[in-house]
Amino acid sequence: MNREMLRDLLTKVRAGDVDVDQALANLRNLPYEDIGFARIDHHRSLRRGQPEVIFCPGKLPEQVAEIAARLKESNAVVLATRSDEQMFVAVRNRLPEAVRDPVSRLITIGTPEPAEHRGVVAVVSAGTADLPVAEEAAGTLAAYGHEVRRVFDVGVAGLHRLLGELERLYTAQVVIVVAGMDGALPSVVGGLLEQPVIAVPTSVGYGASFGGLAALLAMLNSCASGVSVVNIDNGFGAARVADSILRLAGPRS
Amino acid sequence: MNREMLRDLLTKVRAGDVDVDQALANLRNLPYEDIGFARIDHHRSLRRGQPEVIFCPGKLPEQVAEIAARLKESNAVVLATRSDEQMFVAVRNRLPEAVRDPVSRLITIGTPEPAEHRGVVAVVSAGTADLPVAEEAAGTLAAYGHEVRRVFDVGVAGLHRLLGELERLYTAQVVIVVAGMDGALPSVVGGLLEQPVIAVPTSVGYGASFGGLAALLAMLNSCASGVSVVNIDNGFGAARVADSILRLAGPRS
Amino acid sequence: MNREMLRDLLTKVRAGDVDVDQALANLRNLPYEDIGFARIDHHRSLRRGQPEVIFCPGKLPEQVAEIAARLKESNAVVLATRSDEQMFVAVRNRLPEAVRDPVSRLITIGTPEPAEHRGVVAVVSAGTADLPVAEEAAGTLAAYGHEVRRVFDVGVAGLHRLLGELERLYTAQVVIVVAGMDGALPSVVGGLLEQPVIAVPTSVGYGASFGGLAALLAMLNSCASGVSVVNIDNGFGAARVADSILRLAGPRS
Amino acid sequence: MNREMLRDLLTKVRAGDVDVDQALANLRNLPYEDIGFARIDHHRSLRRGQPEVIFCPGKLPEQVAEIAARLKESNAVVLATRSDEQMFVAVRNRLPEAVRDPVSRLITIGTPEPAEHRGVVAVVSAGTADLPVAEEAAGTLAAYGHEVRRVFDVGVAGLHRLLGELERLYTAQVVIVVAGMDGALPSVVGGLLEQPVIAVPTSVGYGASFGGLAALLAMLNSCASGVSVVNIDNGFGAARVADSILRLAGPRS
Amino acid sequence: MNREMLRDLLTKVRAGDVDVDQALANLRNLPYEDIGFARIDHHRSLRRGQPEVIFCPGKLPEQVAEIAARLKESNAVVLATRSDEQMFVAVRNRLPEAVRDPVSRLITIGTPEPAEHRGVVAVVSAGTADLPVAEEAAGTLAAYGHEVRRVFDVGVAGLHRLLGELERLYTAQVVIVVAGMDGALPSVVGGLLEQPVIAVPTSVGYGASFGGLAALLAMLNSCASGVSVVNIDNGFGAARVADSILRLAGPRS
Amino acid sequence: MNREMLRDLLTKVRAGDVDVDQALANLRNLPYEDIGFARIDHHRSLRRGQPEVIFCPGKLPEQVAEIAARLKESNAVVLATRSDEQMFVAVRNRLPEAVRDPVSRLITIGTPEPAEHRGVVAVVSAGTADLPVAEEAAGTLAAYGHEVRRVFDVGVAGLHRLLGELERLYTAQVVIVVAGMDGALPSVVGGLLEQPVIAVPTSVGYGASFGGLAALLAMLNSCASGVSVVNIDNGFGAARVADSILRLAGPRS
Amino acid sequence: MNREMLRDLLTKVRAGDVDVDQALANLRNLPYEDIGFARIDHHRSLRRGQPEVIFCPGKLPEQVAEIAARLKESNAVVLATRSDEQMFVAVRNRLPEAVRDPVSRLITIGTPEPAEHRGVVAVVSAGTADLPVAEEAAGTLAAYGHEVRRVFDVGVAGLHRLLGELERLYTAQVVIVVAGMDGALPSVVGGLLEQPVIAVPTSVGYGASFGGLAALLAMLNSCASGVSVVNIDNGFGAARVADSILRLAGPRS
Amino acid sequence: MNREMLRDLLTKVRAGDVDVDQALANLRNLPYEDIGFARIDHHRSLRRGQPEVIFCPGKLPEQVAEIAARLKESNAVVLATRSDEQMFVAVRNRLPEAVRDPVSRLITIGTPEPAEHRGVVAVVSAGTADLPVAEEAAGTLAAYGHEVRRVFDVGVAGLHRLLGELERLYTAQVVIVVAGMDGALPSVVGGLLEQPVIAVPTSVGYGASFGGLAALLAMLNSCASGVSVVNIDNGFGAARVADSILRLAGPRS
Repeated sequence: MNREMLRDLLTKVRAGDVDVDQALANLRNLPYEDIGFARIDHHRSLRRGQPEVIFCPGKLPEQVAEIAARLKESNAVVLATRSDEQMFVAVRNRLPEAVRDPVSRLITIGTPEPAEHRGVVAVVSAGTADLPVAEEAAGTLAAYGHEVRRVFDVGVAGLHRLLGELERLYTAQVVIVVAGMDGALPSVVGGLLEQPVIAVPTSVGYGASFGGLAALLAMLNSCASGVSVVNIDNGFGAARVADSILRLAGPRS
Repeated sequence: MNREMLRDLLTKVRAGDVDVDQALANLRNLPYEDIGFARIDHHRSLRRGQPEVIFCPGKLPEQVAEIAARLKESNAVVLATRSDEQMFVAVRNRLPEAVRDPVSRLITIGTPEPAEHRGVVAVVSAGTADLPVAEEAAGTLAAYGHEVRRVFDVGVAGLHRLLGELERLYTAQVVIVVAGMDGALPSVVGGLLEQPVIAVPTSVGYGASFGGLAALLAMLNSCASGVSVVNIDNGFGAARVADSILRLAGPRS
Repeated sequence: MNREMLRDLLTKVRAGDVDVDQALANLRNLPYEDIGFARIDHHRSLRRGQPEVIFCPGKLPEQVAEIAARLKESNAVVLATRSDEQMFVAVRNRLPEAVRDPVSRLITIGTPEPAEHRGVVAVVSAGTADLPVAEEAAGTLAAYGHEVRRVFDVGVAGLHRLLGELERLYTAQVVIVVAGMDGALPSVVGGLLEQPVIAVPTSVGYGASFGGLAALLAMLNSCASGVSVVNIDNGFGAARVADSILRLAGPRS
Repeated sequence: MNREMLRDLLTKVRAGDVDVDQALANLRNLPYEDIGFARIDHHRSLRRGQPEVIFCPGKLPEQVAEIAARLKESNAVVLATRSDEQMFVAVRNRLPEAVRDPVSRLITIGTPEPAEHRGVVAVVSAGTADLPVAEEAAGTLAAYGHEVRRVFDVGVAGLHRLLGELERLYTAQVVIVVAGMDGALPSVVGGLLEQPVIAVPTSVGYGASFGGLAALLAMLNSCASGVSVVNIDNGFGAARVADSILRLAGPRS
Repeated sequence: MNREMLRDLLTKVRAGDVDVDQALANLRNLPYEDIGFARIDHHRSLRRGQPEVIFCPGKLPEQVAEIAARLKESNAVVLATRSDEQMFVAVRNRLPEAVRDPVSRLITIGTPEPAEHRGVVAVVSAGTADLPVAEEAAGTLAAYGHEVRRVFDVGVAGLHRLLGELERLYTAQVVIVVAGMDGALPSVVGGLLEQPVIAVPTSVGYGASFGGLAALLAMLNSCASGVSVVNIDNGFGAARVADSILRLAGPRS
Repeated sequence: MNREMLRDLLTKVRAGDVDVDQALANLRNLPYEDIGFARIDHHRSLRRGQPEVIFCPGKLPEQVAEIAARLKESNAVVLATRSDEQMFVAVRNRLPEAVRDPVSRLITIGTPEPAEHRGVVAVVSAGTADLPVAEEAAGTLAAYGHEVRRVFDVGVAGLHRLLGELERLYTAQVVIVVAGMDGALPSVVGGLLEQPVIAVPTSVGYGASFGGLAALLAMLNSCASGVSVVNIDNGFGAARVADSILRLAGPRS
Repeated sequence: MNREMLRDLLTKVRAGDVDVDQALANLRNLPYEDIGFARIDHHRSLRRGQPEVIFCPGKLPEQVAEIAARLKESNAVVLATRSDEQMFVAVRNRLPEAVRDPVSRLITIGTPEPAEHRGVVAVVSAGTADLPVAEEAAGTLAAYGHEVRRVFDVGVAGLHRLLGELERLYTAQVVIVVAGMDGALPSVVGGLLEQPVIAVPTSVGYGASFGGLAALLAMLNSCASGVSVVNIDNGFGAARVADSILRLAGPRS
Repeated sequence: MNREMLRDLLTKVRAGDVDVDQALANLRNLPYEDIGFARIDHHRSLRRGQPEVIFCPGKLPEQVAEIAARLKESNAVVLATRSDEQMFVAVRNRLPEAVRDPVSRLITIGTPEPAEHRGVVAVVSAGTADLPVAEEAAGTLAAYGHEVRRVFDVGVAGLHRLLGELERLYTAQVVIVVAGMDGALPSVVGGLLEQPVIAVPTSVGYGASFGGLAALLAMLNSCASGVSVVNIDNGFGAARVADSILRLAGPRS
């Protein structure tokens, strides 16, 4: 459309129907977004095969279902994060292939096609209460077509459990570490590995955990190299960071 | 320049030297900023006569002087905020007309031309320690060509002083209220006036003022209508908000 | 009444029924508020046609209805903010013309008369979850008689959407920007426009958004000129600031 | 008992049954608390006629009733703060003279006897939402036998309302000021009066009020003399401070 | 002056030179402050004999000296708080009777006349590092004509020291308690005494004392009755609260 | 298994089936965890007789019951903390000997065997609202086989109550002090005793207690020697610290 | 003196010079502190051989020297914490045997006598910047007569360093863990050991370490058993906690 | 050494001088670190060519020089971060090839060898005051052998400047975004790009920036995908994250 508009203008210039000054004026008023949109669109097209994502909180069940149905038309996979049971019922009524994981609260609609940048991500979590966040990361990665290694319940207070899983971590390309309370796990993992480590603080804890603040601060202050941090409980965001890294790395040989 | 580039392209299209598809490709790669810059530039040109501003902290005296000299070439007024004495010496060496107000720490170079949107702003302050911030607001407004009414030292603990100045406040178009400690003054002023009130918390205080946090929170929670807030100690910012309002209001009749 | 009291006293002085010293004593004891009230009343009378406003939280449905009915007697428009469904039922029982918008939770009773200072305000919001706050601002502005342009869902992570709406923003007089999470939108909007920008942080977000604190701090630290900030989720307050500015600006020509 | 123990020891010393060194050793091991308790008890006896107080939160209805019944045996007045309706039912079953004020949530059992230090306290509040806290202060003061002047809904954004009540404030002995949101009222009241002013921040507000923190900080930073502060929502505590002052002042002549 | 203005107006009304409506209009514009000022002034006159106070921080030595000299003309005692050595030199050059206490940093000029409300205040402090704040309170009280009992270095970790001073506390009228670090002292003192207790948190401490925040929060949460709190390090403010209470109590018999 | 692997390797070395260099290479790749696990396991075996603990929040009733049943097979005592009534029902269905204390919310399954390091711990609490946390500490200690002395409701505002219990504190080996609000009790107790004092802040309080933050900060700033602190409401953790100390101290003679 | 007073009274009772009731009255007014002091003194005498301690900050060099000299008269060891070089010069002038460690800033005067409760404490630290705090703990322990094992620079980001020192940790009685930044080390150490672990957060770090807050919160949220926490940078306090535990444990066999 | 120990043991097993069970026992006690160190060492050896890094703050100039000299012996490149001028003098005395960049405060010793994973990183910064942090990132990346694209001074308040540099950003592999104040830049950049974006908040700002907290929170709440965050002012850390990603990605083709 936009390109058509431009082509139309240029064609008229060529044909002499529009003179140069007039075309110049038109172009000067050409809204940003048109060119901008085209550009970004072009880039977006590189991501074909990636799921579109709906952030559910604050939306009505029917709204989630409506958006999901619309997105499904042009996407192989649609993902809905932080859904509740009612939203799922609404979605499944319109898209029977939808499945929902009650732990991560992810609704996945469709199966990811094999992606060019498919990689291996380890999702490490400290305690069982961190599971919903860890599974949100794992489920998102799966929806993006990556292989996920779950290394759960390996908090630093029982170091031998973590050390017993090192082999599986050494051979992952990216490692996501999910921890609440003292948030110490990413420092330990980051110190043992060379790969990029994405730390996800969780709101798990009580008292002086202040809703995940303790874990967040600990992770930001990690002295291990290669550790970066996303928002509290943001398992989805960590998966997106991992995907952006793996897209760069290309497929695992 | 940019316009020339575009004109050149269009002229070539017209002349048949460049065909439509090729022109289209060129335009599609046309960097955002070129059109964007032009656009904004156009808008910027509406502000002719306005001072250009240098934020001094973190710059070397010679850097401040160099930037000031360069800006002065194409601007009637150049303003430098939060300057120190050494910066002023460096600036005056190159621009002898520069003057510096030691209270507000503003360096002003040049005299503002009468602005179309010249207005009347009252700058109200609670205590003598708030003066540097209040004067930064006042000096900036003066550099933008507005009339400034200083209503200083009228903290709410001595209400009669404020009430004694109401007449001068009623007839101002915009009111800037500067206060530290309990930050109560904007609530009282905002309750008495119909005009836009811009509240500036200051870091004046000690103990539980936490560097201006107490005043900031109080101002954000003001129940008076028409009060909005800028950053702690940001007298300059308040003046810019006032100027943007007065530009809209047009000159006082 | 108050004026009557004064007139009565003066008439008696004139008639010689009260001598000067006695009148002086009376006047000296004249409570502040009487003169004060009159004064403010006078100013208030300039606002004829403006809605009176009820802040609903913490009031019983019948109390809201009672206050609304009483205010409606002498006001063309009455507004109730942050109402719930039960409050609306109670209000409508007494004032059948009342309408309630479920998104903004505003109850509006009556139609605004054309105001002298009617203006054009753009209400910009970052995400769909910011809608209730954005609509509170929009609905309040409408009740004050202003034209509202809704520019919704233009968060900075999808810049092309914002850039595509610039034209509608350039031609508004005042711009209200509503955003939660990273609170980045007012900085971008404020950098693109010359008009006064009123930033409203929202409590939308999770984790390290800390109930809107992240957005609030970001907005207070905006380096764009002309941006001032109101309390978290205070769409109503932003509308009042906008109205105070537009009243100053006068009607749009 | 304790006194008997001591008397017994001394009698034995006198009778020569216990020699001085042995008695000295016994006295050295005399536990703190025994003498301490006696001492404090003696002081406590000066407070006869004052109500005993039960802080209800976290107690079961029957526990509140049981404690109330036991205390009532030896006290003219028993007060229960922050009670709920169920607690009241339980109390009234055992003490039919109990009354409960739904606004302040105070249960009062018994009528205060005229106190020697009876005084006049003004309880000033900013907004209608501050009422529960203001009434907790007022009801407690009444239970202690003081005269209470309610000066409600006089927030600083409508200064004329406060100024209209100055006469009633000037003639009170102690002033309690209750305010949420910006917490500005105690500064204004403290600036107008010479009497002790006790400021009570409330959790009324939203967004950047952070549960009363904004009001608390504002009050601690008040520049008015004679203002001291109690905990957020602590109407009861303010009343106790006022009572301790009035006890010192003696009855109003 | 103001009274003259009013008298003049009324005389003209009486004489028929000004009609009632015109007088009414004039009176309506009568500035608040004139009546207000008179009123407050009248009240201020009740405080004759009280020192005037200069808050030194942020003022130049000559400014402090100038203000001190001006105030001394009409006041028996002038007090300057938080002064430094240079300010003192400047003051003493003009007012040779000035004395400065290096611990409290108070400059006192003149000797307090015996006040009608002279009372006995105990100033209790927890550690030697709290001395500057405790002495600011003590010195201010002395300048207001009160008797001060210093009960220093009686922190709760050595309870026997406090208990050994109870006699001197029982017989004071008001008790000021100064403590940093854990801020526990006011709770203990408040539990032992019936008198008003004014708690002053200090910034003494390190680490998690966060500049006095720990002590401040502890004091606000004290469960002892009759305890109210002033700002961190505000020894002067506590003395003013004590004075306001003692003025109410009248002289000690 | 792991030992077998090693034995196998060494046997082959001895038999000459594997040469030294090859064995060396194998050993160098020997995963951390295997040796590590053995080691830690060995240490764990020293703790035989200690209860295993389940942290209930975030687990389903059946999960709690399942874990409890599995742990009970190899442990004399199993403890479940922060359980609710439903969890208890599920546990009791499978383990009829389970008992639950509604105050501490602890489920205990089995009776502790007499431990070698059995000790005497005093659990001191400030107010009745601190009971759940104090009982969690007490119940945990009992499950570990220690003698518990409950010294409850001895807040510092009624010092005589605490002083009356000193004898029972002097003769305890370790003292746990539980307090909310001002958190002052550990400072007073720590100043009176020579033993290790473990301070537990609770979330009891309102307003500026900020969910236990005030008590936590006060305790961290205690100037009494020998006081250390655990997380807010962490009665269980305090008991574990006490147990680790008593294990060191050995049985009381 | 106090004992003499008592002896005098009892002698008079015995001699019949004072009757029992009069003696009873005297004893009842006997100030707390006299008996109290005796009691505590008695307890203090159990600590013979322990150093007396001077906290230097805020004291003048001569004051430190004076206090040190006075304490040295009756104590084998005197310790001064957080001293500077000038304080040391002043102390050494009067007490030539004084030595100062520039890292820990401890001045030690005298040699500790072998203590009955002498124990083995490991002081573990994460980074070289934590050394001053770790050495303050170590130096204090040495002054109390304990054997100290320094296990420094074993931060969790290089786990092998810590694991290489486990043997020395397993055989210590108490472990002090000093760490800034992410504060993760105590969780790891606490998970590997059965002994009491005292965690000391340090202010080492920058940015989101917020002066040690990040480390403090992490340590309070540690899920390892047996970990308790002292104030930020409080190496001395940790040593005192360790000493109180070792005193309980008795000498190492 | 360690390997020798193992070889020695195995040789003895082979020779029959040590039997299998004894060797097994020895191996079981084999300290963690020895094998661990070897393992990590092995991994470390993959990083040959990477610089070793010294964090300067808190170290003496001679210490920095000593460490640098020692590390240089076995490393091609040694980097020292946050150095001051004096440290540089000390280092250059021993290592004359050392160079120091005064803006980033980095000392680099040696030239990086071409790395296998050499990549292209764009370092984007918002304002000139963010330069030291941006240059620390850039200088570190250069020392690791990566190509750096500096895109400086493109804050969101002047969006056209950023949009004008998009081409250079689109073609970078990883993007580091450095911003203080409102921290809005990473959200905008992250929304425009598909690559991993590492956000670095800086402490640039004043007032409500609270030392970089505002920027940090904004970045954590970014709704753009692929954005992760490191500590405030941690340019070095961001570079290490970027390097870990590029190592994964392999060299740019």
